[in-house]
Amino acid sequence: MAKILIIYYSRSGNTKKMASFIKSGVKMEENVEVSLKDVAQTQVKELLDYDGIIIGSPTYYGSMAAQIKRLLDESVCFHGRLEGKVGAAFSSAANIGGGNETTITDILKAMLIHGMIIRGNSQGDHYGPVSIGSPNQRVEKQCKTLGQRMAKLVKLVKAVK
Amino acid sequence: MAKILIIYYSRSGNTKKMASFIKSGVKMEENVEVSLKDVAQTQVKELLDYDGIIIGSPTYYGSMAAQIKRLLDESVCFHGRLEGKVGAAFSSAANIGGGNETTITDILKAMLIHGMIIRGNSQGDHYGPVSIGSPNQRVEKQCKTLGQRMAKLVKLVKAVK
Amino acid sequence: MAKILIIYYSRSGNTKKMASFIKSGVKMEENVEVSLKDVAQTQVKELLDYDGIIIGSPTYYGSMAAQIKRLLDESVCFHGRLEGKVGAAFSSAANIGGGNETTITDILKAMLIHGMIIRGNSQGDHYGPVSIGSPNQRVEKQCKTLGQRMAKLVKLVKAVK
Amino acid sequence: MAKILIIYYSRSGNTKKMASFIKSGVKMEENVEVSLKDVAQTQVKELLDYDGIIIGSPTYYGSMAAQIKRLLDESVCFHGRLEGKVGAAFSSAANIGGGNETTITDILKAMLIHGMIIRGNSQGDHYGPVSIGSPNQRVEKQCKTLGQRMAKLVKLVKAVK
Repeated sequence: MAKILIIYYSRSGNTKKMASFIKSGVKMEENVEVSLKDVAQTQVKELLDYDGIIIGSPTYYGSMAAQIKRLLDESVCFHGRLEGKVGAAFSSAANIGGGNETTITDILKAMLIHGMIIRGNSQGDHYGPVSIGSPNQRVEKQCKTLGQRMAKLVKLVKAVK
Repeated sequence: MAKILIIYYSRSGNTKKMASFIKSGVKMEENVEVSLKDVAQTQVKELLDYDGIIIGSPTYYGSMAAQIKRLLDESVCFHGRLEGKVGAAFSSAANIGGGNETTITDILKAMLIHGMIIRGNSQGDHYGPVSIGSPNQRVEKQCKTLGQRMAKLVKLVKAVK
Repeated sequence: MAKILIIYYSRSGNTKKMASFIKSGVKMEENVEVSLKDVAQTQVKELLDYDGIIIGSPTYYGSMAAQIKRLLDESVCFHGRLEGKVGAAFSSAANIGGGNETTITDILKAMLIHGMIIRGNSQGDHYGPVSIGSPNQRVEKQCKTLGQRMAKLVKLVKAVK
Repeated sequence: MAKILIIYYSRSGNTKKMASFIKSGVKMEENVEVSLKDVAQTQVKELLDYDGIIIGSPTYYGSMAAQIKRLLDESVCFHGRLEGKVGAAFSSAANIGGGNETTITDILKAMLIHGMIIRGNSQGDHYGPVSIGSPNQRVEKQCKTLGQRMAKLVKLVKAVK
């Protein structure tokens, strides 16, 4: 059974809501188990237990919140052991052009440095889902699509390992 | 008299419209001359004649159009001679999360490599104005604000040179 | 048989040499066919014929050469049809801190926007191989590693399609 | 008297050493006061007291250390009040292509979002000084140059305010 972990940091609840939509998207696929965790409740060693890791953060100064960055910094003790896992990212932001894309690409860069596999989407939010303010229907759809695509890719990668 | 050049590439007309709004913003300041040019009509040596350079591009695969990139590549023959000029960037895109921010930051990176001075904005579109589809009132305001801020900064830098 | 295309632009020969090393790396794997092409000899429709696409560019103002960008811009006519292909990037640069990493991440962003699958490396050059000046032994090793890892990932993805 | 603050996070001592070289560079200019602070000893409200802010971090997963990010996140309580200040960034990293440039550009993005003024360098390390491992003579020179350029720019901006 392929396992996916969704980690988020959220103060306003927007990023958390996106995380829930992504979870629903993952569940549209069979044979995938999905967990949803607040970063404050996440132990870095748990990263080892999953085939796919999806990380969401509000947009703080064009990048992920320090709480998310700290988890990534701590993950150095398992450097090399996340090789070949699948990753994805998402972000909520206060406004268009406010740093939401760069928040996502910063999380993706950290995943690449772990040797993880990532994938964009030729339709919609290319790097990962973005919400401007509270998630609307457009965002819900983007999040569910990401969840489902991620589930498919994780199963694919796990199948041939 | 401080001189600002706005260069754009535009197929749908959206980026061109943004360029016009920015021009209006520059004109809100006194003692600044502003020129607006299609990149196809721009000679690379003209870059030397201006104190400030603003570049706009549609979002093509998360970065500036090749037409804009070619002008920047050609500018290598004047490498070092744009030092201390002021720069800014803007972009139009088909959708939110579609690469608009990274298009702007890619243009800004090129300006930094020329030793240019750039500035963000703590309000609105932080890296530079972004239009999703045809420029609306929000975008018009962002563009005018950029033009005016740019004019002020160019005058400031020129005053003390 | 999985097929990989390596596309490069090179004036000094440094990027071309990196491309050759990557080709050698791909050949270390069985059941993979690899082609090496100068971007000037590449038709955009050829992208459809390959399971993996590796793109290399010298570092020009912190991003890929306009010649490479033009190919990516033209690829919009096949937008959506590169979904699920595997991508990677590499760059040569004149100096450390000179824009080599951002050149690679700019190419990778374009690949994500095509819905392609990319992978980093937890060892060595994380985003993709970087050469400072003429490729030395370190670079040769990084390039061969990238080629081999890419070949493995392309075969994996193709196997389960 | 123009005032510059250099903030760093350092575990191995490499980033701290770079900070000291930058301080020496600032001191090559007259009429500028410079302070050097470990991020752990920095109160976010101190940012208001300076005309220029230079931030250095080791490269952790392609971006700044969480300790630096936390300071930036906390600075939101003064959002808008750093407008027009001058900023710069630097980073030490374990290896070439290891995320050093993206660490610097991530710090610069945060500064742009604060409405700060930044500048690149057409010579040497374009976005900001990068050290691969322990700072050598090349890095020392880059750091001193950054310090001196920063001092000049801060004085220029302060003179006309």
